[in-house]
Amino acid sequence: MGKKVAIVTSNAAKGEEARRILERLGIEAEVVEMEKLEIQSESLEEIALRAARAAYEVLRRPLVVDDSGLFVEALNGFPGPYSSYVYKKIGVRGVLKLMEGVKDRRAYFKTALAYVSQGVERVHVGVVWGRIAEEARGSGGFGFDPIFIPEGHSRTFAEMEPWEKDALSHRARAYEAFAAELKWI
Amino acid sequence: MGKKVAIVTSNAAKGEEARRILERLGIEAEVVEMEKLEIQSESLEEIALRAARAAYEVLRRPLVVDDSGLFVEALNGFPGPYSSYVYKKIGVRGVLKLMEGVKDRRAYFKTALAYVSQGVERVHVGVVWGRIAEEARGSGGFGFDPIFIPEGHSRTFAEMEPWEKDALSHRARAYEAFAAELKWI
Repeated sequence: MGKKVAIVTSNAAKGEEARRILERLGIEAEVVEMEKLEIQSESLEEIALRAARAAYEVLRRPLVVDDSGLFVEALNGFPGPYSSYVYKKIGVRGVLKLMEGVKDRRAYFKTALAYVSQGVERVHVGVVWGRIAEEARGSGGFGFDPIFIPEGHSRTFAEMEPWEKDALSHRARAYEAFAAELKWI
Repeated sequence: MGKKVAIVTSNAAKGEEARRILERLGIEAEVVEMEKLEIQSESLEEIALRAARAAYEVLRRPLVVDDSGLFVEALNGFPGPYSSYVYKKIGVRGVLKLMEGVKDRRAYFKTALAYVSQGVERVHVGVVWGRIAEEARGSGGFGFDPIFIPEGHSRTFAEMEPWEKDALSHRARAYEAFAAELKWI
């Protein structure tokens, strides 16, 4: 295909992770670190697409932007698109406190991945369902990983090896969906 | 002065409130209802200014945009710029739950008001300090008003008459600061 995609992010480590995922899928990519336009919206898809459009205005080359969040059913989807802000402010402990005494612990992680190039816009999503643990466990991953147990597992994301998490993560799923379509666009 | 200012908002009721405040301050204004660009940022000032700039690109006339939030000290400023989202998702009860057993109940409401016209950009803020009540009280106002007790008072914002709240509110203070400067710009 020979299309080199720019992964636009303000977080070089996350960009590198995305680059590795795409490389494994046969897509050459490079990380471009720049400030992302992040709008307030309840739609991760809209947040990612608006950021990708704004970056395209500057870079004028094929690029992707992704955005992720944890959506807790009993909290009406909170913290959702604002997960990183909420994590920074009230942390894993705050979410555990909100979930005290709550029976319904279903939650999902979601990534929206927006691709923009000349005349083309696409958004792909990746979702992984699971449940909120009763207490934080594990030291791997980042953010809310220590309290998220993916469906069919008993360990949290933070208790898994990176390759285990990557094999079932929302982020990898979004990139896989994108990679599958890229050859057609 | 004869300057007619557009109050740009996606919420007509809030716009009307701002128009009344400005009218009382001798400034003629009209409400323009349109979708606001709302970026994600921890700075209300930045959120309001970016929204005002984006609206100016479209309207090309002197305008204001305001944005407000509740900042709870013991929660590191949460919910802050994301107050309306957090209110919708976990409500007054969610914030009360996060504050269970917390002694330091200090908090403030803040409004950032951005003004943009040809070659001019200004941001004014209004702040009112107070504390988070132990339980929700009152049915007036909106959002987190039922759990916010302004300093020097014993009732929550939601227990006050509109004119009482207006006399000390963060929003009115921001508009007053703006009105005081408008004659010079």
